[in-house]
Amino acid sequence: MEPTLDVVGVGNAIVDVIVTVPESFIDEHGLVKGAMTLIDAERATSLYAAMPPGIEASGGSAANTAVGVASLGSAAAYLGKVRDDQLGEVFAHDLRAAGVGFDVAPASDGDPTARCLIQVTPDAERTMNTFLGISAFLDQRDIDDAVVESAKITYCEGYLYDTDVAKAAIRHAMDVAGAAGRIVSITLSDSFCVDRHRDEWLELLANKVDLVFANEAEIGSLFQTDDFEAASRQITDLVPMAALTRSEKGSVIVTREERIEVPAAPVEQVVDATGAGDLYAAGFLHGLAHGASLGRCAEMGSLAAGEIISHIGARPRVSLADLVAGN
Amino acid sequence: MEPTLDVVGVGNAIVDVIVTVPESFIDEHGLVKGAMTLIDAERATSLYAAMPPGIEASGGSAANTAVGVASLGSAAAYLGKVRDDQLGEVFAHDLRAAGVGFDVAPASDGDPTARCLIQVTPDAERTMNTFLGISAFLDQRDIDDAVVESAKITYCEGYLYDTDVAKAAIRHAMDVAGAAGRIVSITLSDSFCVDRHRDEWLELLANKVDLVFANEAEIGSLFQTDDFEAASRQITDLVPMAALTRSEKGSVIVTREERIEVPAAPVEQVVDATGAGDLYAAGFLHGLAHGASLGRCAEMGSLAAGEIISHIGARPRVSLADLVAGN
Repeated sequence: MEPTLDVVGVGNAIVDVIVTVPESFIDEHGLVKGAMTLIDAERATSLYAAMPPGIEASGGSAANTAVGVASLGSAAAYLGKVRDDQLGEVFAHDLRAAGVGFDVAPASDGDPTARCLIQVTPDAERTMNTFLGISAFLDQRDIDDAVVESAKITYCEGYLYDTDVAKAAIRHAMDVAGAAGRIVSITLSDSFCVDRHRDEWLELLANKVDLVFANEAEIGSLFQTDDFEAASRQITDLVPMAALTRSEKGSVIVTREERIEVPAAPVEQVVDATGAGDLYAAGFLHGLAHGASLGRCAEMGSLAAGEIISHIGARPRVSLADLVAGN
Repeated sequence: MEPTLDVVGVGNAIVDVIVTVPESFIDEHGLVKGAMTLIDAERATSLYAAMPPGIEASGGSAANTAVGVASLGSAAAYLGKVRDDQLGEVFAHDLRAAGVGFDVAPASDGDPTARCLIQVTPDAERTMNTFLGISAFLDQRDIDDAVVESAKITYCEGYLYDTDVAKAAIRHAMDVAGAAGRIVSITLSDSFCVDRHRDEWLELLANKVDLVFANEAEIGSLFQTDDFEAASRQITDLVPMAALTRSEKGSVIVTREERIEVPAAPVEQVVDATGAGDLYAAGFLHGLAHGASLGRCAEMGSLAAGEIISHIGARPRVSLADLVAGN
């Protein structure tokens, strides 16, 4: 069967609560700067109470990627779990309004829709604290096999590995995609997340994954090394292809045959780093789904990431298709 | 008793859902451009489904004013009604985080927290469609008389007049403030809202109000005239003072003794007109509460309005106290 979708994203369905804070806020509240930290409902309540007024916007790493892919003109769908509450409605609306297929039924009981409390500091770095809520209960039955089989690429968040239920869902999605002969990809998500799952991920990558996305900290954490060059050589022992991002230094694509370095897109002012990795993946996957060269895939990743970091929030504000057409 | 608060705002407690749309969206969906239209839950659902992805941010006219007043350094409180749902939590959080006192208990049943679907067109005009939800059920028992008595100025939204329950609440708040010898003020809110309540408002202004805020369309609608000059003379037959805003033409303050014209503050780029009137009122009320000249009150109104229209959303992004200190 010919694929009818380009990319299906699988991830934690999250609404972001975004505030700008002074640098001192991070220390005062014991936050881990630049990282994604999991928090429980109680901590979410107390941290939120300490935060300044904010805005709410749909987020979720793989969901941001799916929206980026759709904005580039690819056919995209998303698998993730919300509650039948107000934030769940917002999340579903924003995906569908962006042209991303989303048909996972909202849960009618259990925890509320996930939220991520994001502190943006003056250096544009984002510090994330996530209350996973119902998103962590994405389970195997929520994975529509037909959707996965119909997509050229299945793209999963490493973050999903933080609960056993969602871990089973992600592995199932990968198995279905693999059996259908599709491309299986994953982002390592966060260096602390890599720390939590290193051994399992080394096995997962070797056995189920075709394409890995990671930044310097994540790939370093995977192989427990500070040597980026060494890590970028090691990764192809596990997977045929990796797209490694290095912030303002651009990205490096490694396969068993080639190594391609692509610069970052010029950005007038970096306002909020939230979503940079997600949108890089969107540009790359869009290119891959349409048979672009790996260099062009990376270029489109850089362009999409450049757009997202030039404003608050992790969803594009302009048509990325228009953006890449001119660049 | 000496007042301990400067301003207490009374209004519809609303969370805004803000999207940017092309001009054609307004016609296609039969919206009334530049106005606030009340919609029911069904229409809210169908209109939201047609809207592009958006962001959510706390709003509500008098709540925006209360936040502006607090940002200017005044002591402010707010009276309005939310449900114990996610948007209700967001609304309460954003007020308190801005330093505004807010102690009305959230309703534990009934309609959800109000939301306003705001379409911002390329000309920066905002078109609002409001599902009032539980906010319309603000009733007399929600008005804490002690809070009203403790405030130098009670500031009410005309929008509250759209339901009988809230109308009773606003009239009660005005009576309490008047009996305590405080300043009673109201904004006429919207020209269509004036149309709905003209006769009652002519009576209300004459009998209970010290200070009216209105824009050109609203004061024109009140006296059913296109002649702004005539309307600006007529209004002081009803109330001792009026602050009349004229967008880029600035504002006119009229009392029974004087007439003061103040230009608008220069704004580099007008991005979103949402909240312009609310923040003008904030600057004016802050000045009035601190004994500034009427000209300076209007200037501070212009500065606060200028800040709010330079970005998306109706809550200030910078300290307004710092802004006016330098201007």
